[in-house]
Amino acid sequence: MALDIGILGYRFMGKAHSNALARLPMFFPDAPDINRHTLVGRDEEALADAADELGFEHTSTDWESVIDEVDAFYNLGPNHVHAEPSIAALEAGTPVFCEKPLAPTLDTAEEMRDAAADAGVPAGNAFNYRFVPAIRYAKGLIDDGELGEIREINGRYLQDWLVDPEAPWSWRNSKELAGSGALGDLGAHTVDLARFLVGEQAGEIDRVSGHLRTFVDERPVPGEDETREVTVDDAYTAQVEYENGAMGTFEASRVADGHKNDHTIRVHGTEGSLKFSLERLNELEYKRSDGRGYETILVTDGDDPYLEHWWPPGHVLGWEHTFVHENYEFLSAVRDGEEFHPSFEDGYEVQRILDAVERSDDGGEWVEP
Amino acid sequence: MALDIGILGYRFMGKAHSNALARLPMFFPDAPDINRHTLVGRDEEALADAADELGFEHTSTDWESVIDEVDAFYNLGPNHVHAEPSIAALEAGTPVFCEKPLAPTLDTAEEMRDAAADAGVPAGNAFNYRFVPAIRYAKGLIDDGELGEIREINGRYLQDWLVDPEAPWSWRNSKELAGSGALGDLGAHTVDLARFLVGEQAGEIDRVSGHLRTFVDERPVPGEDETREVTVDDAYTAQVEYENGAMGTFEASRVADGHKNDHTIRVHGTEGSLKFSLERLNELEYKRSDGRGYETILVTDGDDPYLEHWWPPGHVLGWEHTFVHENYEFLSAVRDGEEFHPSFEDGYEVQRILDAVERSDDGGEWVEP
Amino acid sequence: MALDIGILGYRFMGKAHSNALARLPMFFPDAPDINRHTLVGRDEEALADAADELGFEHTSTDWESVIDEVDAFYNLGPNHVHAEPSIAALEAGTPVFCEKPLAPTLDTAEEMRDAAADAGVPAGNAFNYRFVPAIRYAKGLIDDGELGEIREINGRYLQDWLVDPEAPWSWRNSKELAGSGALGDLGAHTVDLARFLVGEQAGEIDRVSGHLRTFVDERPVPGEDETREVTVDDAYTAQVEYENGAMGTFEASRVADGHKNDHTIRVHGTEGSLKFSLERLNELEYKRSDGRGYETILVTDGDDPYLEHWWPPGHVLGWEHTFVHENYEFLSAVRDGEEFHPSFEDGYEVQRILDAVERSDDGGEWVEP
Amino acid sequence: MALDIGILGYRFMGKAHSNALARLPMFFPDAPDINRHTLVGRDEEALADAADELGFEHTSTDWESVIDEVDAFYNLGPNHVHAEPSIAALEAGTPVFCEKPLAPTLDTAEEMRDAAADAGVPAGNAFNYRFVPAIRYAKGLIDDGELGEIREINGRYLQDWLVDPEAPWSWRNSKELAGSGALGDLGAHTVDLARFLVGEQAGEIDRVSGHLRTFVDERPVPGEDETREVTVDDAYTAQVEYENGAMGTFEASRVADGHKNDHTIRVHGTEGSLKFSLERLNELEYKRSDGRGYETILVTDGDDPYLEHWWPPGHVLGWEHTFVHENYEFLSAVRDGEEFHPSFEDGYEVQRILDAVERSDDGGEWVEP
Repeated sequence: MALDIGILGYRFMGKAHSNALARLPMFFPDAPDINRHTLVGRDEEALADAADELGFEHTSTDWESVIDEVDAFYNLGPNHVHAEPSIAALEAGTPVFCEKPLAPTLDTAEEMRDAAADAGVPAGNAFNYRFVPAIRYAKGLIDDGELGEIREINGRYLQDWLVDPEAPWSWRNSKELAGSGALGDLGAHTVDLARFLVGEQAGEIDRVSGHLRTFVDERPVPGEDETREVTVDDAYTAQVEYENGAMGTFEASRVADGHKNDHTIRVHGTEGSLKFSLERLNELEYKRSDGRGYETILVTDGDDPYLEHWWPPGHVLGWEHTFVHENYEFLSAVRDGEEFHPSFEDGYEVQRILDAVERSDDGGEWVEP
Repeated sequence: MALDIGILGYRFMGKAHSNALARLPMFFPDAPDINRHTLVGRDEEALADAADELGFEHTSTDWESVIDEVDAFYNLGPNHVHAEPSIAALEAGTPVFCEKPLAPTLDTAEEMRDAAADAGVPAGNAFNYRFVPAIRYAKGLIDDGELGEIREINGRYLQDWLVDPEAPWSWRNSKELAGSGALGDLGAHTVDLARFLVGEQAGEIDRVSGHLRTFVDERPVPGEDETREVTVDDAYTAQVEYENGAMGTFEASRVADGHKNDHTIRVHGTEGSLKFSLERLNELEYKRSDGRGYETILVTDGDDPYLEHWWPPGHVLGWEHTFVHENYEFLSAVRDGEEFHPSFEDGYEVQRILDAVERSDDGGEWVEP
Repeated sequence: MALDIGILGYRFMGKAHSNALARLPMFFPDAPDINRHTLVGRDEEALADAADELGFEHTSTDWESVIDEVDAFYNLGPNHVHAEPSIAALEAGTPVFCEKPLAPTLDTAEEMRDAAADAGVPAGNAFNYRFVPAIRYAKGLIDDGELGEIREINGRYLQDWLVDPEAPWSWRNSKELAGSGALGDLGAHTVDLARFLVGEQAGEIDRVSGHLRTFVDERPVPGEDETREVTVDDAYTAQVEYENGAMGTFEASRVADGHKNDHTIRVHGTEGSLKFSLERLNELEYKRSDGRGYETILVTDGDDPYLEHWWPPGHVLGWEHTFVHENYEFLSAVRDGEEFHPSFEDGYEVQRILDAVERSDDGGEWVEP
Repeated sequence: MALDIGILGYRFMGKAHSNALARLPMFFPDAPDINRHTLVGRDEEALADAADELGFEHTSTDWESVIDEVDAFYNLGPNHVHAEPSIAALEAGTPVFCEKPLAPTLDTAEEMRDAAADAGVPAGNAFNYRFVPAIRYAKGLIDDGELGEIREINGRYLQDWLVDPEAPWSWRNSKELAGSGALGDLGAHTVDLARFLVGEQAGEIDRVSGHLRTFVDERPVPGEDETREVTVDDAYTAQVEYENGAMGTFEASRVADGHKNDHTIRVHGTEGSLKFSLERLNELEYKRSDGRGYETILVTDGDDPYLEHWWPPGHVLGWEHTFVHENYEFLSAVRDGEEFHPSFEDGYEVQRILDAVERSDDGGEWVEP
């Protein structure tokens, strides 16, 4: 019995997930069989082309009819359309997989979390970096106590696609459509990774101080002879304090010249340290308790996380492989009726931190999430 | 009209190419349509399982019947079975794509080259590293004269899977089955990349001095209570001189502890320099004529080679993407009746160098290829 | 006419400066001639040994008598003894060179600044990292506008000598004697470097949010069978906002396992970016406006700052060379009656930021320095 | 009783050693006391200036009179003036410290070695890179068997100061004055380091294949309106085989654009690997037998070689510190009447390899040193 998948959204994330679905049979033969059943969008022509390219059997401009028909519903649209279809699907008992961040506002995220809790079916929030083998390996080290007690964690996510003031306006520059800018788009990844890596050791984040900034106030609208206001942050910084007293800084920028997709995490414990950088995602730098410096580990051995499914040691994976792993885990959970993480609950917890960063920025003081 | 593909071999390379074929429609929509038609092997049961996993319609234990039925024949078996089926397919007018190195001996490689020349159909030799975007970008710089006249080129390919004397014997340790060891398996890649990168500027390699060495003389046979002799090299070194006077060293090892798949190329010209390392295959290090040091370029921008087909800047590719690019180029050539490189001719030229390295090692003197 | 130098303090910093003085004649022949005149301390025996080792003509346990005798007075003792002798020397019209941070409290730092202003002689605060050639080179790029408008600056200074809870107590763990911990010891360097690099472009720091933390509350007293309380921070983090709207994070730690002296600065502007790391102090990473990635510049060419005084390109300098450059500049200013930076005024400005970080930590809100 | 030192040569090497001598008292108090007694040269005026700068008591244009007067004679002139004064000094029973390579020809080097053997006093050949702390640390690992049996060793030394064909002619471009080019100047360092590091494990080099090349045939003479012929190599490559069967490549270049002083050594053993690069001379990369990748060790801890004499961990040393260590060891040997390595014997052994590389290049075949 194959699972029928419906996907809303056919651009960047639509392609990333469709590709992942297409690759499961060859590399994860124990994954559920799936049908790329229905692709959902608004523009019928573009939709037809996309369905053809991405290998979907059907298209629909009406997500409401789709959520009942499929065994799992992927909501990969812009942030402001995450809530309604996701909640409706969950109310229909259909497992949902939703892109991150969960919602433009914390209230909406809470509704989504509650809907997931009520539905009792897997509701995944697509923080794909949890599925980087090197990150899984890092989590294993931390969970095994190899770093001792966690004292410091830092994350920064630097991109430069908005460094040019003439870079075009898009929905990602709108508070209404996106919720926030670098904070929600990039910072959400950092917060989720931090929770994933050190949550069991350091607990949740207790206190936050945040700072958001928009460097370019308006941007040209593509194809039009006008500019539109930028209502989200180009960059944010934050300080955090964990339940166990661990501390750290988070930051992200879309105007950091020379950085394309530079998501870097550092963790220092009483017994060791770790560094990870997304642009070299096959590598983990690890300071062992009995070592003198960081060891550069190429996490591509057969017994590394997910690696038995791929190639021999040293044959590096790419960014997109994280989606294959993520879909494998999510769809297995759907088939087996098990929990999946990162869940809507996880997504909501991330959003509580993001919201706290914004509230702190508004008030100029530390706040509790 | 879709192209029917027959593939001999269903292990590492069989999977790498099958995956590449499966991914073409979504990412290279202008590639020819293809059918994964027939998978060829000897063990019917394993073959059936593999065909299922790799998405083939048919299986066959008789390659002779397949070469007439398909529009392209992929020979991905061990080196000693490259020649006969490839030549037969070419004589049948069927385009052939053969794994590297072309053949265990130079004589056999020459027969294969001649068969390709007679057939007048694309005959590709699968040196996939030509299809790394950073390598294509590097070649563009060299061809545009950005490095000036090429003076030095160095290549080393380090692995460590045989560092342990108890690592098991396989066909790759047999001169009869593989032709040579590190030299043919790894050195062939280095020689091909060197030809690809600097061939137009520096000409062919004129003279070679070589050295081969086997550090572990016998290895245990898996599942048997005995050892078998290692008749190939664990490592080689070479010095080369080009037509234009450029010089360099090549080396490879399967016993270089700490190196998984470390293929590193350096090129120094009168105006600039380049460094590339396969374990960080999205990066190219480039010393410009007006720069002071090496610039680390993440070759993932939309106008970088092949990148418009994939993801936004900074979303890194993996090792396997080289096979997608390679298959795209080969199958486009098959459809359009155009030349494809690296060809059997290229593979033969590589093999002339490998053969010269061995002859030089035997005689203890520089030789001409 | 040689300048007579008196130095208070003969441990780490005493040796670093004495060495610098000793090296000036050979490498900076246009520096003033100097006599290592008097070494000041409390323990006569240790002092005599140190004077012998460090090449001083005289010793004294009475700094008050020395400040009149010498042409420049170096105050290299612990932080809590910076103020009294420095102020007395300045009141006597003797130029003063004082280690950083200026004082344990902002009030005291203000007194020292005022004394320097009244004295009208050079009063230097020894932020030696301003004198790293790569940092000077970086400042040149920023001042020349090569980075455009500065938007983001980040600095972190990681050490690990207190990661072990059994590491011994010293005056550096006492609020009374040191003022603060990682903040004053390491953060002071970061704040000074940030001011030096981007001050002219971004202005001063307008607002600060800070966080201090002590992970190990008490430490063993060497040679005694007891522990003593740690009353300073093991680590701090801060967020900063500049006059021009630039933003950033600062942090330092003495418990960052695997980091010895890792002071890293990043600057992002509208036209380019820079990265510097103290453990590789001969290198600067520079993203040019017309480049694609960071270029690793070895700042050792003859026309790089201070390099004409040293060795040919590629013959790298060490940490201690910064003291030679610093002393060269300070003593030249003393001889020529010119201004020297970093001055007590600079040191006071640094301390205003450090004080603001502490006040912010106390109050849990952003504060103005 | 202080040792009187006479030094022939006052340019680059003269300054490097004079500085080292000047620094011994402060940092190596157990070194012999020394007087910078007499500086020897030909140009009286330049000599007087240099003696003043470098701190020498006397000058002389007559080395013959000096060799009897001093307790140690440093021969730091160009290669072609190494032999006569060194041999004369040794015959006078005066310890000699001579720059590398020992002599322009192997015959001359042999004479120097024999003179040293007859004299029975320390005769040092100044291969300063043996005195890099990270190299000493590496040797310790190898000697302790941490790398197991040595299988592969590679060394390359890249500079770019002759990449420009207009770079001026100097004695370093003359076979008569220098013996060879990149081979003798840079390759000598590589061969010595290789001997030092793996000699005890792998034995001496048994066989060599070499290749020399001059890319720029003539260069302008500074201050004159003419060019002069370049009669030495701009670059060399070599393959080597050790007594124990270990293999490797060596290479050096003065035309490797983008490389200033890039001396890189790699060693692979059956149990581990090492990498060292001179431009980051405080670091050693070490693959342990129980590790997964290379660990970057900052060799600046108090118990690292020579480090107790310098600064706290993480306060990096520079290139010139190698000379301090080297002089400390040499002068201690002079005082104590003990052996010093690298000796003239070591220098001769290096030269045997260099000579073999040249003979191999001439004959186009492997040769024994």
